Amino acid sequence: QHFFTNATFSLQIKDIEVLNCEYGKNTIKFLRLHREGKKHFVKEVEVCAHLRLTSAQEYLEGNNSLVIPTDTIKNIVLVLAKKNGIPSLEQFAIDICNHFMTTFCQVVYVKTYVQEVPWQRLHEDGVPHIHSFICVPDGIRFCEAEQCRNGPLVVFAGIKDLKLMKTTQSGFEGFYKNEHTTLPERHDRILCGELFCKWSYGECKDFDFDCIWKKIRECILEAFAGPPDCGDYSPSYQKTVNCIQMLVLSRVSQVQVIEVVLNNTFYNVVDMKNLGLNNDKEVLVPVEAPYGSCACTLGRKKFFEAQGHMLRDDRKCQFGLAAAQGN
Amino acid sequence: QHFFTNATFSLQIKDIEVLNCEYGKNTIKFLRLHREGKKHFVKEVEVCAHLRLTSAQEYLEGNNSLVIPTDTIKNIVLVLAKKNGIPSLEQFAIDICNHFMTTFCQVVYVKTYVQEVPWQRLHEDGVPHIHSFICVPDGIRFCEAEQCRNGPLVVFAGIKDLKLMKTTQSGFEGFYKNEHTTLPERHDRILCGELFCKWSYGECKDFDFDCIWKKIRECILEAFAGPPDCGDYSPSYQKTVNCIQMLVLSRVSQVQVIEVVLNNTFYNVVDMKNLGLNNDKEVLVPVEAPYGSCACTLGRKKFFEAQGHMLRDDRKCQFGLAAAQGN
Amino acid sequence: QHFFTNATFSLQIKDIEVLNCEYGKNTIKFLRLHREGKKHFVKEVEVCAHLRLTSAQEYLEGNNSLVIPTDTIKNIVLVLAKKNGIPSLEQFAIDICNHFMTTFCQVVYVKTYVQEVPWQRLHEDGVPHIHSFICVPDGIRFCEAEQCRNGPLVVFAGIKDLKLMKTTQSGFEGFYKNEHTTLPERHDRILCGELFCKWSYGECKDFDFDCIWKKIRECILEAFAGPPDCGDYSPSYQKTVNCIQMLVLSRVSQVQVIEVVLNNTFYNVVDMKNLGLNNDKEVLVPVEAPYGSCACTLGRKKFFEAQGHMLRDDRKCQFGLAAAQGN
Amino acid sequence: QHFFTNATFSLQIKDIEVLNCEYGKNTIKFLRLHREGKKHFVKEVEVCAHLRLTSAQEYLEGNNSLVIPTDTIKNIVLVLAKKNGIPSLEQFAIDICNHFMTTFCQVVYVKTYVQEVPWQRLHEDGVPHIHSFICVPDGIRFCEAEQCRNGPLVVFAGIKDLKLMKTTQSGFEGFYKNEHTTLPERHDRILCGELFCKWSYGECKDFDFDCIWKKIRECILEAFAGPPDCGDYSPSYQKTVNCIQMLVLSRVSQVQVIEVVLNNTFYNVVDMKNLGLNNDKEVLVPVEAPYGSCACTLGRKKFFEAQGHMLRDDRKCQFGLAAAQGN
Repeated sequence: QHFFTNATFSLQIKDIEVLNCEYGKNTIKFLRLHREGKKHFVKEVEVCAHLRLTSAQEYLEGNNSLVIPTDTIKNIVLVLAKKNGIPSLEQFAIDICNHFMTTFCQVVYVKTYVQEVPWQRLHEDGVPHIHSFICVPDGIRFCEAEQCRNGPLVVFAGIKDLKLMKTTQSGFEGFYKNEHTTLPERHDRILCGELFCKWSYGECKDFDFDCIWKKIRECILEAFAGPPDCGDYSPSYQKTVNCIQMLVLSRVSQVQVIEVVLNNTFYNVVDMKNLGLNNDKEVLVPVEAPYGSCACTLGRKKFFEAQGHMLRDDRKCQFGLAAAQGN
Repeated sequence: QHFFTNATFSLQIKDIEVLNCEYGKNTIKFLRLHREGKKHFVKEVEVCAHLRLTSAQEYLEGNNSLVIPTDTIKNIVLVLAKKNGIPSLEQFAIDICNHFMTTFCQVVYVKTYVQEVPWQRLHEDGVPHIHSFICVPDGIRFCEAEQCRNGPLVVFAGIKDLKLMKTTQSGFEGFYKNEHTTLPERHDRILCGELFCKWSYGECKDFDFDCIWKKIRECILEAFAGPPDCGDYSPSYQKTVNCIQMLVLSRVSQVQVIEVVLNNTFYNVVDMKNLGLNNDKEVLVPVEAPYGSCACTLGRKKFFEAQGHMLRDDRKCQFGLAAAQGN
Repeated sequence: QHFFTNATFSLQIKDIEVLNCEYGKNTIKFLRLHREGKKHFVKEVEVCAHLRLTSAQEYLEGNNSLVIPTDTIKNIVLVLAKKNGIPSLEQFAIDICNHFMTTFCQVVYVKTYVQEVPWQRLHEDGVPHIHSFICVPDGIRFCEAEQCRNGPLVVFAGIKDLKLMKTTQSGFEGFYKNEHTTLPERHDRILCGELFCKWSYGECKDFDFDCIWKKIRECILEAFAGPPDCGDYSPSYQKTVNCIQMLVLSRVSQVQVIEVVLNNTFYNVVDMKNLGLNNDKEVLVPVEAPYGSCACTLGRKKFFEAQGHMLRDDRKCQFGLAAAQGN
Repeated sequence: QHFFTNATFSLQIKDIEVLNCEYGKNTIKFLRLHREGKKHFVKEVEVCAHLRLTSAQEYLEGNNSLVIPTDTIKNIVLVLAKKNGIPSLEQFAIDICNHFMTTFCQVVYVKTYVQEVPWQRLHEDGVPHIHSFICVPDGIRFCEAEQCRNGPLVVFAGIKDLKLMKTTQSGFEGFYKNEHTTLPERHDRILCGELFCKWSYGECKDFDFDCIWKKIRECILEAFAGPPDCGDYSPSYQKTVNCIQMLVLSRVSQVQVIEVVLNNTFYNVVDMKNLGLNNDKEVLVPVEAPYGSCACTLGRKKFFEAQGHMLRDDRKCQFGLAAAQGN
């Protein structure tokens, strides 16, 4: 049997540094059904679980002796779901991290991503159905948990694919102009976008993750829309992003860091002069490409002062990696 | 200037029959904003409009003199939206058909498809917001209108991408078996699927299309799920499809023909015996490919007796074409 | 056990006509590996197989006794692949039709769709690799076979998702104008589109389906592009569609009917006057929505004269249904 | 006019740290057409360009005076394409970075991503066509350039969506086992996956980016497949990932860091015993979810020793962010 050995390369392993290596199983989809008498409860999720091992010998030498197969990773996720249920997405992600850290001494890092399929109980004339559900994807809930050996367990939660629109109380004026500027100033435009929001918790002590998540979703909607009878004026996508973050940090003490990405769909008022009509912002065409994107990550100063500078660098990386997975 | 002429081909036009030729503009997306004082109403849609002309000379000879450019088709759709608004998807589709039929004598057939972006008004603590909206895609509403010159205007409406699940009261037993059968009989399984439902109206006289559409959506949910306190037993996907159709035809007299397609996701109970566990339908894995599909089209006998046999053949084609576009 | 019976509905089955009902399995994906010594050959496909039964009792009454489960349909497809291999997509589709028609007397209609995953053998410095492949999706090959009991077996083949562009030798002039026309005439524009092409064979007698398919693909490219040193002028998307059809019908006698759909991406020359530049068709922006679509179906007169008028109506429906599945 | 002011929040700006904020324009799609006599050359790309400004006042205070609108960013990208053409993706990305850094003193960081639409010149009987092209997406080429003010310009290049398969010479044995292991050992399986590969260059001095990219693509294919007459045995996905990296680093001196992600589709040999057949790896079913993923990043030691430790941390973040955008 022929074998692609390291001797094949003109390069020596000693001249190489392994900057990262991790592997795992993605999109482990399953439904966890829970019954209380005749009433059924469902939680359908999609899980990714990644590991980094103490040694990179499987990469460098083809030695698999420490490799936990991704098939085993999948089995473990399903077994944990069977044994523990899914009390909340976050608790389930934490359970997975804990299992890998305590069971396998060759694991130095574990990262878990859990995303929910948005089943909602059906209602007929206001009466909840005991076992029927409808899929309502108005923003997808997800979370992450990750841990380095001897490091803290870090938990993130978030919402993605949340599409919001306000048809007035939005403008963009006073921006920087030069010879490449063709955009006119506007004080009344449509603000429409797809929102990604992810936050990290500090030390998680008996948190009611479901309750917190709902509260944050409400903050997002409130900060985006403003009061129901008049709204709030948004001077830019950036300021709207910031308002969402500030409201969450004001109201939800458990959140330490919050990242918001707003991908904007611009609505172009159709010029109908050539067609003999005056279009008073009644007919607008969405421009889906290119689209603007603005992103901001805010953190509580107290949190970082407590954690020290070293953590800050790690945290940056985690956000980058997390955004990769969240998209 | 070189020109690819018909003389290039060894084949003569007279040996050829044009079985169909149509053209048009697809995915004309726009938002129609309507204001009543400070309160805003939005209707965002995606429109397709196709035409067949009296002659195929643009295809056969490169003579464009009768061709209404697809750019003009787009302009007309936007102008109609500006002038008439979108009272309902169906009325807007009818308006487009009427415009092309009455304006252009070279048009012998027009078909319009209108699909809605599912914006819903935001609510804060139960209070509706005057100008903010959230996208909630729990089933997409669409409609079609089509007309042949000298023929009736035919209007279809429908819902697609509606994902439903019931976690019990579903089985599949007593089916045909032979040497290729490996499926066991089951009297308690999960029934989960994506539903496509489309119906045609007879002569449309002052219909409240919005009200009818909502009523049909409720029928679908009720027939799928059964009573909220116990559900209904489904002996097969096919019977569930039929129940949906029968309930709609029973309750909504305006519907003459109804097509339902149910694409099923099967949930496989994970065998955990090797893992030392007894999985009592608690952890299930969705099987997304391959998936089962069942489709049925029912019509009222009275309707077809009135219309005669010729129409029936046409109708068949329309359903085929419509399904193509609806997907 | 509660049961949703027909008595539940205010409507009687006798007032209803079943216009169509069919079911089946979609996206049955598998790889057929064939070895000749150390050399490997792969054919990966995605199959859909649909049936119509003699009675609709499973829909109307919940009686499953004639229903061949979609799981069995899948098994049969895999067994046929194991036993016969996949000599060509078309022959495999024919094999499936034949199997269902000859094995199950309750089947009155069977339709099969087979699509290929475009694996190509890897080459290193021109040397073909014995067991390595790369996926090259430059147009997807598919076919269909369908049969009604006591009717002929009809075979279609096609190519889809074929994206082509020519950067000159295309214009659009002399079209119909009215007050809604804003498109200027152009004699030099980019022609770019995604092509769908599907044709039907007459009676299939020892056809080399692979060879014919390749020949037709070459015809499409040649008719689209024209001679390599100068191209051919296209006066419209419609005429280009027709040229493709005429060239195929001229060169490939086995093709009886041919449908071509060209979905056009328009390239807009960016106006750079405001930016102080003269853009001589150097920088162009694709407009992906809305997009133009033109479709034409041509048939040989001789073929239809031989088949008679009745077939023609059926054929129309088949094309409609086929397009639905092909998308 | 109502305004959502910072006073609205119970939280003070001074308690908050801005960890990151950036904005820009995504999916700026355009075609750059270049003519040499009658021969045409096309480069169609999709560009993303993101900026970080000296101050976050637009986020925190709604002061837009330093904000370069994303519309202006788009204009600049198009103007650069018009003026400079696209000599290579990498050079174009560098040009954009340079423009923003030298033109706008309020910009402290710029990141550019450029992805190519894979148009290939059409050939007829081996003769290249002067102006016709076909889209052949057998791996998508992309690159990135990014720069902090006063920092080096960093250039990455890569390939994504490259699907490869080998039907033998792959196994997975000797792995770690415990009570959750159900995977059998195999010494002959199919190895199939989608490959993502991204590398960074050191200081870019007159590189022929097109030539290097092609050479790396060849290395990837060679390391994946092995010699055409026999292949190479792969003991794991991980080792295959490493072989690709080692071969690239061995042969292409300009590459300093290389990241490879291999997302594996497992092919399950269908058990046909119940169907009375012995399936000798002839019929296999792809398992698309869940899927395994393995990723590794290697760097040259010399490169990092020269750059020092501080750079290394930054680089980590860049890789995380880059992967986010690349997906």
